[in-house]
Amino acid sequence: MPTKANDPKRKTWLETAADTDFPIQNIPFGVFLTRDDIITIGTRIGDYAIDLGALHQLGYFSEIPLTDDIFLQDSLNDFIADGRKTWRAVRNRISEIFEANNPELRDNADHRDTVIFAMDEIEMQLPVQIGDYTDFYSSKEHATNVGSMFRDPDNALLPNWLHLPVAYHGRSSSIIPSGISVHRPQGQKLPNGADKPIFGPSRQLDFELEMAFITTAANELGQPIPVDQAEEYIFGLVLFNDWSARDIQRWEYMPLGPFLGKNFASSVSCWIVTLDALEPFRTNSPKPDQEVLPYLKYSGKKTFDINLEVSIQPEGKEETVVCKSNFKHLYWNMSQQLAHHTINGCPVNSGDMMGSGTISGPTPDSYGSMLELSWKGSKPVKLNDGSDRKFIEDNDTVIMRGHCEKSGAARIGFGEISTKIKPVFKPKKK
Amino acid sequence: MPTKANDPKRKTWLETAADTDFPIQNIPFGVFLTRDDIITIGTRIGDYAIDLGALHQLGYFSEIPLTDDIFLQDSLNDFIADGRKTWRAVRNRISEIFEANNPELRDNADHRDTVIFAMDEIEMQLPVQIGDYTDFYSSKEHATNVGSMFRDPDNALLPNWLHLPVAYHGRSSSIIPSGISVHRPQGQKLPNGADKPIFGPSRQLDFELEMAFITTAANELGQPIPVDQAEEYIFGLVLFNDWSARDIQRWEYMPLGPFLGKNFASSVSCWIVTLDALEPFRTNSPKPDQEVLPYLKYSGKKTFDINLEVSIQPEGKEETVVCKSNFKHLYWNMSQQLAHHTINGCPVNSGDMMGSGTISGPTPDSYGSMLELSWKGSKPVKLNDGSDRKFIEDNDTVIMRGHCEKSGAARIGFGEISTKIKPVFKPKKK
Repeated sequence: MPTKANDPKRKTWLETAADTDFPIQNIPFGVFLTRDDIITIGTRIGDYAIDLGALHQLGYFSEIPLTDDIFLQDSLNDFIADGRKTWRAVRNRISEIFEANNPELRDNADHRDTVIFAMDEIEMQLPVQIGDYTDFYSSKEHATNVGSMFRDPDNALLPNWLHLPVAYHGRSSSIIPSGISVHRPQGQKLPNGADKPIFGPSRQLDFELEMAFITTAANELGQPIPVDQAEEYIFGLVLFNDWSARDIQRWEYMPLGPFLGKNFASSVSCWIVTLDALEPFRTNSPKPDQEVLPYLKYSGKKTFDINLEVSIQPEGKEETVVCKSNFKHLYWNMSQQLAHHTINGCPVNSGDMMGSGTISGPTPDSYGSMLELSWKGSKPVKLNDGSDRKFIEDNDTVIMRGHCEKSGAARIGFGEISTKIKPVFKPKKK
Repeated sequence: MPTKANDPKRKTWLETAADTDFPIQNIPFGVFLTRDDIITIGTRIGDYAIDLGALHQLGYFSEIPLTDDIFLQDSLNDFIADGRKTWRAVRNRISEIFEANNPELRDNADHRDTVIFAMDEIEMQLPVQIGDYTDFYSSKEHATNVGSMFRDPDNALLPNWLHLPVAYHGRSSSIIPSGISVHRPQGQKLPNGADKPIFGPSRQLDFELEMAFITTAANELGQPIPVDQAEEYIFGLVLFNDWSARDIQRWEYMPLGPFLGKNFASSVSCWIVTLDALEPFRTNSPKPDQEVLPYLKYSGKKTFDINLEVSIQPEGKEETVVCKSNFKHLYWNMSQQLAHHTINGCPVNSGDMMGSGTISGPTPDSYGSMLELSWKGSKPVKLNDGSDRKFIEDNDTVIMRGHCEKSGAARIGFGEISTKIKPVFKPKKK
């Protein structure tokens, strides 16, 4: 644990709000377009974006072995491939550069003008080029809720669920950063009681509150990653909204799993928060219901206490918080997920993304999807403007946020994912 | 249709065997390491590999608008992104350069030495960097066989199967070229009658005979590709072996589909054969059992008559052909697959790979997997060396081949996928 960079007493010479998600103890990594339309890797402190490509060119990382163009990239993949020692050295050095008493950059107005941007001057991009995206299904509460609704409340979990972290492959090409709108998808749906599908817009468009971790290159084809080494290959975490069209999914998913019901879009937050920054918030996973096979046994605290919430904002109205949950509710942790994913020799690369699955908590206000919050549409969710929702409507914006806080540590946040739903795409007439 | 390049009367000044998969009418595209360890894009005629990077530097493509480094790449993605007009112009020009009566390269010994390699001098690579890999399930015979074995012979097809081309997302990182060996995967399996899984090597390791098509960048997020435009976005086809561990798959796949039972490896042939080369072999798909929704309706011949076969070769023994099938058996064609995949707005990129699903024919000797050939292990398959197989054993090599032939057209082939199965990976003791 890099104690100095996490020291809650450390202050920065940049002006930051007391409740910012991005104090000097965070130092997340992202990719953005500068005001001059140059793409670069950067970090964020308060409401300032910092151009690491420019900082490196000015010599601020001369003590760390880095290639000249490591930050002048349109994705973090190469930097992540450099491994944990490099991420840690860079994060610690950034913390040092912006520390209140360090005059190096603070007192150099030319350099400051070159490397520091206001957040509203830049345009955030997807932080990684995602080679493969896997989505787990690791919340016992979510799996139980779904099993109760669609199968049998008395046998809600399928027989394999407590033995392995169930997962499936998702689509990388439709993962988009916060701020990009999504058209309502259309497709085949089977109306209740019908024996033939109809075609049309999804009427059960839903969010799924998830987080996702991003890996570095970890193993060769054929070689598993042991559970106790898994964290070495995890760069950091983002918020993840796994958009779902429940009606399309229900008709298509047998026997090979979700496809068009999911792959029209997934939205992510733009700053990757490192495991080092989350270190003060380590906590225990829920007590397992039964023993697992040896390759899934771990020791220590392998998850993090991260508060999560979801809001719905109808167009032109205020937002309503509809869900408050926490990353720590997940039954299976990231180390188990990565050990399971590779036990058959499946190779994991730099920039791969692994979703947690919907993170539902034990209480009805902590359920991570409209499917659960409205219990299949039977209990519409009230919004502050007086309207209610079974699922997401056109022109609604869904906002997810996450942060860690506790006494004796600086608040560490993830910012947000904000995504507006547009009506079904209409091709232009020729 | 580029008639001159497909003209069966066209001859080349290169020496080629009469039954080669790669006559001058084929002109496939691939990526290889030259004898000087330089990576380049190339084509193949007979048993010669041709370095297109070097040909381009020597000015042979000066009439086609191409960037200087378009062939000096470690994948075909950028070339494929240039679009069908460019692929066609380059293929036609290659055909012209190697045509028997054209002296340009034929009579230039220096140039010939620079651009032409014997196949055994070079090392083939994966032809594309695969952004996303989707696997369909489009053989009615295969879906019926699997449904009969594991569910109900009288209701073998699930209700959605005849309405849409069922598919799921696969893993890109474990797709490997012909020639790379695969370790037997291990994982969780539920023994018959047990209520708890055990851990160990898969005992039901299987191949799946498939083909896969490779796309160019086709659509923006939110915008479907109409079925009658789909072929414009298909660059070409390869042979595809979707390795499967049936015992691992059976325990894990509910409710989200196959995961570790598939993602330890999939093997592909190294030369991508273009749709233009396959043009003479267009044929009709099977007559549909029922009408489909309008977005899946197509006209014309949208599939190809491609003979496929699978052999098993025990170590040090001769090979035995265990399956003969044909690409034309597939119920759903590529145009329908691509229209379905994008109907919800899912974006398709250059280098994406779409597997057909196991291609089984109507007769027992045309089934495309050991699961079907040995009917779940109940009818072991006899090999020429006197041994038999329920599934694939350690040190077996599985070989898939494919070619088109008919009178009045040159034979067009795909070469082969050859993959040896090694025992479970053992980590080195420290």
